[in-house]
Amino acid sequence: MSPVRSSLEPGFDRKFRAGVLGATGTVGQRLVQLLADHPWFELTEVAASERSSGKKYSDAVNWHLESPIPSAAANLVVKGLDPTLDCDFVFSALDSSVAGPAEEDFARAGYPVVSNSKNHRMSPDVPLLIPEVNAAHLEAIPVQRKNRGYGSGFIVTNPNCSTAGLVLVLKPLADAFGLEKMFVVTLQAVSGAGYPGVPSLDILGNVVPFISGEEEKMEAEPQKLLGRWDGSRFVEAGLGISAHCNRVPVENGHLECLSISLKKIATLREVREALRIAVLPTAVKNPVVVLEEENRPQPRRDVNAGNGMAAVVGRVRECPLLDIKLTLLSHNLLRGAAGAALLNAELLASRGFLTRSRIAASDPAAVPVIQVAE
Amino acid sequence: MSPVRSSLEPGFDRKFRAGVLGATGTVGQRLVQLLADHPWFELTEVAASERSSGKKYSDAVNWHLESPIPSAAANLVVKGLDPTLDCDFVFSALDSSVAGPAEEDFARAGYPVVSNSKNHRMSPDVPLLIPEVNAAHLEAIPVQRKNRGYGSGFIVTNPNCSTAGLVLVLKPLADAFGLEKMFVVTLQAVSGAGYPGVPSLDILGNVVPFISGEEEKMEAEPQKLLGRWDGSRFVEAGLGISAHCNRVPVENGHLECLSISLKKIATLREVREALRIAVLPTAVKNPVVVLEEENRPQPRRDVNAGNGMAAVVGRVRECPLLDIKLTLLSHNLLRGAAGAALLNAELLASRGFLTRSRIAASDPAAVPVIQVAE
Amino acid sequence: MSPVRSSLEPGFDRKFRAGVLGATGTVGQRLVQLLADHPWFELTEVAASERSSGKKYSDAVNWHLESPIPSAAANLVVKGLDPTLDCDFVFSALDSSVAGPAEEDFARAGYPVVSNSKNHRMSPDVPLLIPEVNAAHLEAIPVQRKNRGYGSGFIVTNPNCSTAGLVLVLKPLADAFGLEKMFVVTLQAVSGAGYPGVPSLDILGNVVPFISGEEEKMEAEPQKLLGRWDGSRFVEAGLGISAHCNRVPVENGHLECLSISLKKIATLREVREALRIAVLPTAVKNPVVVLEEENRPQPRRDVNAGNGMAAVVGRVRECPLLDIKLTLLSHNLLRGAAGAALLNAELLASRGFLTRSRIAASDPAAVPVIQVAE
Amino acid sequence: MSPVRSSLEPGFDRKFRAGVLGATGTVGQRLVQLLADHPWFELTEVAASERSSGKKYSDAVNWHLESPIPSAAANLVVKGLDPTLDCDFVFSALDSSVAGPAEEDFARAGYPVVSNSKNHRMSPDVPLLIPEVNAAHLEAIPVQRKNRGYGSGFIVTNPNCSTAGLVLVLKPLADAFGLEKMFVVTLQAVSGAGYPGVPSLDILGNVVPFISGEEEKMEAEPQKLLGRWDGSRFVEAGLGISAHCNRVPVENGHLECLSISLKKIATLREVREALRIAVLPTAVKNPVVVLEEENRPQPRRDVNAGNGMAAVVGRVRECPLLDIKLTLLSHNLLRGAAGAALLNAELLASRGFLTRSRIAASDPAAVPVIQVAE
Repeated sequence: MSPVRSSLEPGFDRKFRAGVLGATGTVGQRLVQLLADHPWFELTEVAASERSSGKKYSDAVNWHLESPIPSAAANLVVKGLDPTLDCDFVFSALDSSVAGPAEEDFARAGYPVVSNSKNHRMSPDVPLLIPEVNAAHLEAIPVQRKNRGYGSGFIVTNPNCSTAGLVLVLKPLADAFGLEKMFVVTLQAVSGAGYPGVPSLDILGNVVPFISGEEEKMEAEPQKLLGRWDGSRFVEAGLGISAHCNRVPVENGHLECLSISLKKIATLREVREALRIAVLPTAVKNPVVVLEEENRPQPRRDVNAGNGMAAVVGRVRECPLLDIKLTLLSHNLLRGAAGAALLNAELLASRGFLTRSRIAASDPAAVPVIQVAE
Repeated sequence: MSPVRSSLEPGFDRKFRAGVLGATGTVGQRLVQLLADHPWFELTEVAASERSSGKKYSDAVNWHLESPIPSAAANLVVKGLDPTLDCDFVFSALDSSVAGPAEEDFARAGYPVVSNSKNHRMSPDVPLLIPEVNAAHLEAIPVQRKNRGYGSGFIVTNPNCSTAGLVLVLKPLADAFGLEKMFVVTLQAVSGAGYPGVPSLDILGNVVPFISGEEEKMEAEPQKLLGRWDGSRFVEAGLGISAHCNRVPVENGHLECLSISLKKIATLREVREALRIAVLPTAVKNPVVVLEEENRPQPRRDVNAGNGMAAVVGRVRECPLLDIKLTLLSHNLLRGAAGAALLNAELLASRGFLTRSRIAASDPAAVPVIQVAE
Repeated sequence: MSPVRSSLEPGFDRKFRAGVLGATGTVGQRLVQLLADHPWFELTEVAASERSSGKKYSDAVNWHLESPIPSAAANLVVKGLDPTLDCDFVFSALDSSVAGPAEEDFARAGYPVVSNSKNHRMSPDVPLLIPEVNAAHLEAIPVQRKNRGYGSGFIVTNPNCSTAGLVLVLKPLADAFGLEKMFVVTLQAVSGAGYPGVPSLDILGNVVPFISGEEEKMEAEPQKLLGRWDGSRFVEAGLGISAHCNRVPVENGHLECLSISLKKIATLREVREALRIAVLPTAVKNPVVVLEEENRPQPRRDVNAGNGMAAVVGRVRECPLLDIKLTLLSHNLLRGAAGAALLNAELLASRGFLTRSRIAASDPAAVPVIQVAE
Repeated sequence: MSPVRSSLEPGFDRKFRAGVLGATGTVGQRLVQLLADHPWFELTEVAASERSSGKKYSDAVNWHLESPIPSAAANLVVKGLDPTLDCDFVFSALDSSVAGPAEEDFARAGYPVVSNSKNHRMSPDVPLLIPEVNAAHLEAIPVQRKNRGYGSGFIVTNPNCSTAGLVLVLKPLADAFGLEKMFVVTLQAVSGAGYPGVPSLDILGNVVPFISGEEEKMEAEPQKLLGRWDGSRFVEAGLGISAHCNRVPVENGHLECLSISLKKIATLREVREALRIAVLPTAVKNPVVVLEEENRPQPRRDVNAGNGMAAVVGRVRECPLLDIKLTLLSHNLLRGAAGAALLNAELLASRGFLTRSRIAASDPAAVPVIQVAE
C-alpha cells in the first residue's frame, strides 16, 4: 500500500479510529491486515454478523492470510452491526445480503461508510470511487447527505474486483485518445469468491465460464467510473462494453483480455506511453505497470506488482477488428477490494471528509462534540 | 470416435493399412490408440525421428494415455521417415520442424498424407479439412497432384486444435445467418503443447496469456475452412476475426469465449436451434452439443462429449456490442488433433481417395500393382 | 463395477428394489449412477434430508458426475428419512450427523441397510465388510438381529475410503505371510470430503496435513476387517498401525505409502506374487493390480483400474526398517464408498440376505407377505 | 535470509567477491537473488555451461523469480567453467552431470567451493554441512586439503533439499532424547526438480510417487549430518531411516510426515519444548518453528517462515508404533538449496575459511598476494 502521505497529517496528534464491518470475511481480514501500522488509521472496532458477535476477534475469525493476525486486532471483541461503534468512520466488507440497510444505518448515524459491497455502487447519489480515476466524484457527497437526510455520515463505494484494475487501465486511454467500445474476457482467481467460496471439486483442473452477476457489473460500473458528476447526477461515459467472465484455478489475481476501439488514431507506442505516464489526480505512483515480455502479465508472477495496487499491462498489440489488444492483471483482494477501500479512505482523509470528533466511549475525559452536517 | 460407417466397406475383405509418422509424440500416441480396433484401418507402421528408429514401439514411446498401449502396436518396430513404409496411407503427427519436407516426400512417393501439422495448412492447393464443414474442398486434390507432379499421393490437413471446435460452431451459424465478425478468447489446456510441453512451474496456479503463433492461426485458418474452392484456388470467407490465446492449468479441453456479429437478425432461440440441428455434409451425428446450464461447458466435465469429437456450446446470450455471445469447448487432442486426422482419413476412404494397391513387403505372394496418378 | 453375477439370479423374474438414503450427496449420486442398468438391483426410491424432500430428484440434486443423471432416477420424487420407502433394502449414504438413528430406524422397520456411514462401523454386532476380505463376518447378522430385536432388517457397513483399498492389499499379505505392524501415510483426493467439501482456497497448490478423524479410523478399522467373528463377537487382528493422513489437490484417488513388517520372511518377488494372485473368497477378479513401472501408481492415471474397484500397487521394495515398502492407490468414491456399498449389497443378495417380499405400494395386485425375522 | 552478522566484519573495507557456477539454473538464480545487497558478499562472476558462455547474464538466463534480476547481476558476462574467475570463492549450483570434476578443478585452483550439488556430499573428506547442526565438521577441511593436494581451495556441500529441513528438526531431538529410528514420507514441491523440471501433464491434479535417487539420499545424508568427525573420518549416526518420496502439485515447500523412535522417554510437551528452544551452535535464531494448529504446516501458507530458512513443525503427537509423529515443512529452494549454500558460506567467512587475497583482474592497483596452502 502506498498511502497518499506517509505520516500523521500536520497538526494532529492521533490517528483516525476505524471500524471494519464484516471483519471476519475474506475482504474484512485483508482490511484488518492492511490497517496494522497504517500511518493515519487505527483499527478500534471489528463488527460482524450475530454469529461472531461477542467473541474475541482471534477466536471468531478463520484467518486465511499468510501473516499472523495483527496483535492489536486479535484481542478486539467482535461487535454486532449496530451503529454504536467507537470509531470515526467504518469500512464495510459486508456480504451483499446484509450490506444495503446496514451501511445506510451507519451513514444515518453519522459515520462515513467506505464500502466494498455492491449494494450502493450504482445509486445515483453515491460515489463509485477510484482515487486515481474520479476523485472529483466526491462532490456528490453533499448532495447525498441532503437527499437522504444524513448528518456527518455518507457512503462511498469502490468497484467490483474485476472492474477496478480495468478502469485503472482505461482511464489514461480515455484521457489520451477517447474510448468508443471494448471487449473484455476475464480469467478470475478463486479468492474473488471469498471463503469457503469455490469448492475445489469445481475448479481443480477446470474452468467455470460463469460468475453470477459479474458480467453485468463489468458492463455497468466503468460507465459510472469514467463518467462525470454534473452537479446533481452522474453522467455515464457512453462506452460500449461486452464482458465474458470465467473462474480459473488461480489463487489471487484477475487476468483480463481486452480489445479496445479508440476515438483517436494512436500507434502502439503512443498507447504504451499513455499507460506508462498515467499522470493521475492523486499522488499514488505508477498505478499502471507496462511489461514488454511477450508472455506477461501472469497471475502468480505479477499479482503483487506495486504491492498489489498496480494494474499490470502486457501484450499491447494491434487488433484486427478494433484498434488495440492488451492483457491486464490486477490483484482482486488488494486493488480490487480491501486496498481499494483503504485508498478511498485515504482520499477522504486527505480531502477533509473524515473527522476525529466522535468520542471514544472508553475515554470519559473527552469533550463531547455535537455532530453537524456539513 | 464415431466412424462414418461401422464395418468394412462392401466388396472389400481387408482394411486399409495405415502408418503413423511421429508416432511417439502426444498426437501420435492418440492416433495409435484410436486405430486399435478401427473398422476400416489397420495400423501397420509407426515412424519417428532417428532417435527412436529401430526400437520396438513400446520401448521407444513414453506412453501417456490412460489405456495401455494397444498390443498390436506395442510390438511394431519404429521406422525412420523414409517414404518406404508398408501401408496404404500415412497420418502425420510430426513436429512442424520436420513435417514440411517429410510430408512432401511421402506424397511424392505416392502416399496419401493425412496431416495434423501446421506446415501445409495454408498452402493454396492443400485442403484444410473438417468433414462436417468443407468436404467439398477435397476437389482441390487433383489440382494439387497436377501442380506438384504427385502421382497417387497428396496431402490433406486438419486445423489447429483451437480452430477445429470453433469452426464446427461457426459453420451452422454461417449457413443460417451469415457471419460478419467475431472476437474469440481462448483458455487452452496444457496437453495442447505436447509432452513434456508446459513446465509445471509455469502453469500451476497460474495463467500464461500467450501461445506462440496461436492467435495468428486462429485469425487465418477459419477463413479458409469457411471459404470455398472455386475450381483453381481457395477463396477466403471474409470473416473479421480477433483472437486472444491463453494457457490455463487444465489437462484437456480448450474453452473459448466468443462474441459474434451475424449478417441476418436472429433470436437467441434461433441461434440455439441452428447449432442444435447442424445438418452437415457427412453422417457424423450431433457434432455440436448445446447445454442450457448457466455455468457450462466446463473442461473437466464436458470435454469428452461425443467421445471427444463434439463441440460443446453453452451460455448463448446477447452481446451488447455484437449480436451474440457464447462459450464453446472442444477436446484439443481428439476433435482438435488425432480425432480430426482420423475423421479426415475416414472421409477420404468413403470418397474413394484411398486405395489398397500398395503391396505389403512382408507378403511375397501379393501381386504387384503399378501406381498410376489419377 | 464387476457384479458378482451378470444377470438375474435363476428362478427370479424381477430385480431387488433399492432405495438410497442421502441420495443427493456425493456418495449418493454415485450410487444412483451405479444402480442404473444394474443386473440385480433397481432404484425405486431416493431419500434425503427435509430440505430436498418432495422435489423431483433432478431438481433436488446438484449433480457432479460426468455422465448425466440416469433418466429413471431423474424423475423420482425425493422422500424424507421415514422408514416407509417402497423398496426391498436401502443403501445409506447419509452424513454421519444423521446416519446413526436413521439407519437404526430402517433396520428396525425391516429393511436391510447397506451403509457407507461411519456411525455403526465399529459396533460390536455390525459387520464391517469387504466381500473379498471378510465375507464370513456376515455371520454376525443373526446375532445383531437378536441383540437389537430387529426382524428382517439389519445393518452392514463398508470401511472408510482410505481403509478400503488398504485392507484389500493387506489381506493377501496377511494370508500369505502374516502381518505384524504397518506405517501408512495417505495423500487423499478432495472428493473424499464430499461437496462442497474442501474450499479451493485451502488446497490449490497446497497440501493440508490433517483430515479430522481419519487417522483414528485407519488405525482402528483394519483391525476389525482383518480380524474374525468368533460366534458372538469380533476379535481384532492385533496388527500395529500408525497412520498419517494428508489432503492433496487431486480430484479422485487416495494414494498411500506403506511400510510393513511381516511375520514370515518373504522375498519381494513372493510379495508381488501374493498380491497378484489374491485368490479371495468371492468371485470378483483381480481386486489387486500390481504395476512394475517405477513411478506408478498415480491418481490421475491409475484411479480407474478395474472400473475403480481395484487397489493398484506399485513400488514394492525393501524397507530398511521393516520388511517391505509399497505404494497403493484406490478410488475413494468407488472402491472406497459407493462401489463398496454396492459390492456389499451384491454379496448380501448372493448369500440370500435380501428378499423380494416387500410389496410395491404402487402395485395393488401384489400379495402381501408377512416379514419374519430369520 | 538472516546473515550471521549484519554488516562488514570489523577491520575490513570490502566484501568477499563471490562467483556462482551454474548461475542460470533454478538454484543459481536464487543465489544471484540472495547475493544482491548481501552484507558480506558481492557477486562478481557468473559461470555456466558453454551454451550460455559469453552472453550477458540477463540474456542468458530464463529468469523465474518474482523479483526482477538484480541490476548488478544483469550486466555480468557469463563465463565458462574454467577456474579463472575473478572472485574469492564460488558457489556451485551445477547440475550433477558436470559438478563432480568442475568443483574439483576450482578447489584445486585455490577456490573455496560451496556446493549445492550431490556429487561430493558423501565423500569421506568433504563436510556435508548445516551450520546449526554440525559446524564442527569444518574440521575436515585441512584433512581434505592434505588428502587431495589442494592449496587454499576446498569443497563443502549442503544436503539434499528434502534432507535439510528434516535434519534441522532431528538435531534438537537427537540432542535432547537420542534417536533410534524414523519413518519419513515426503510430499515434495515441483520446484525441487528445477526448470523446466516436472512437465505439467505429469503433475496437474496428480501425485507422482517416485523421485529418482531421493529416497537413497534421505536414508544416507542424515547419518553423516548427525554423525561426528573423529579427526580423520566421519562416523555415522547409526539412525535407522526409511523414506518414501512423492512429488505433489505444489510450487514450493517440501512437506514431510515423520514417525520417530527416541532413545529416552519424552512427553509430547517435552518434545515440543526441545524443538522450540533449539539452542544451536551458530547465531541463526529459531531455525525450527512449532505450530499448534491441528492442520498446519501447509506449503502455501507456511513455506516462507523465517524467510524460507526455518523448518516448520506441527501435529506433534503420539505414534502408536514408535514414540512420536509430527509433520514438518521447509522451503526446498531456500533452506533446501540456495539459502543452505549461502548459510554455509557465511559460516566459512565467520570462521576464517574465506580470504580476500585473490586480486580482481579489473583492479590493476591491487597488490598481488601469493597463495599459500594452509
